[in-house]
Amino acid sequence: MTNTTDEHLRELASAIGEQLAAKRLTLCTAESCTGGWIAKTVTDIAGSSAWFDCGLAAYSYEAKQGLLGVRPETLEHFGAVSRETVIEMVSGALVHSGAGVAVAVTGIAGPGGGTEDKPVGTVWIAWKRRGGYPRAELFHFDGDRESVRRQTVAAALEGIAQHL
Amino acid sequence: MTNTTDEHLRELASAIGEQLAAKRLTLCTAESCTGGWIAKTVTDIAGSSAWFDCGLAAYSYEAKQGLLGVRPETLEHFGAVSRETVIEMVSGALVHSGAGVAVAVTGIAGPGGGTEDKPVGTVWIAWKRRGGYPRAELFHFDGDRESVRRQTVAAALEGIAQHL
Repeated sequence: MTNTTDEHLRELASAIGEQLAAKRLTLCTAESCTGGWIAKTVTDIAGSSAWFDCGLAAYSYEAKQGLLGVRPETLEHFGAVSRETVIEMVSGALVHSGAGVAVAVTGIAGPGGGTEDKPVGTVWIAWKRRGGYPRAELFHFDGDRESVRRQTVAAALEGIAQHL
Repeated sequence: MTNTTDEHLRELASAIGEQLAAKRLTLCTAESCTGGWIAKTVTDIAGSSAWFDCGLAAYSYEAKQGLLGVRPETLEHFGAVSRETVIEMVSGALVHSGAGVAVAVTGIAGPGGGTEDKPVGTVWIAWKRRGGYPRAELFHFDGDRESVRRQTVAAALEGIAQHL
């Protein structure tokens, strides 16, 4: 079981901040199921304005299209929780911001919304550096809405650290 | 002292959700100093996808301009923490989303960034319904970064409830 306490999330965010600042990079977050929690966690850190550019919590289909440029066909054919959508989200975050690094998450936090193919806890996360290729990973988290969201924040932050 | 526990924030968010759903309205948040915490709080509520459209955490000047359409002259003449900026933020949130109600916050959470005119804890919050006039209010919160941000989330949510 991954450590997902507030204290641990804070340590992750702080470590990422140091890495980003050292590389003079800024971060943009594109969040669906976590709804701003990743952005909240990184801005808990004093001085994060030096390395955090913006956070986009795109909950509705319309917001995913308007704010992040996800194509309607992608949402229709593959669904909001899919590799295709998360990759368009992370790419769109870089197009719609001046950040050098982006992370995107989309998943089913529950309690509703799960299906046989995509049960509650199914989460796609993608990371991308400007000019680089996106990397996407599929997670299956256990637990309730709070727990799925919390594990998603932790995994997203851990991936940024690895991706830098 | 306002009640700002997680439990109370959750109750506020839940009550707003019921009001928004009853009026078939959706919400967009535009956050500077709280960095996504308002959006995180409302999406803690299961079923919030019915009434939460999107959240924009615009930390940098560039993000305030690009994501929310705040004018560079406004930021230059009045500063990021001003009535003029928060009104452009809340209006921009409605322009850049399909939401029917928006809330915007900009303030100095500290520990750095305070000045004699605008000490740490200075926070502007604005609310607007689509087609309506914006309302903006100035707050002076005490406490550390965590406390200022937490009080800002509570005041923003309380204002939505009053504004609906």
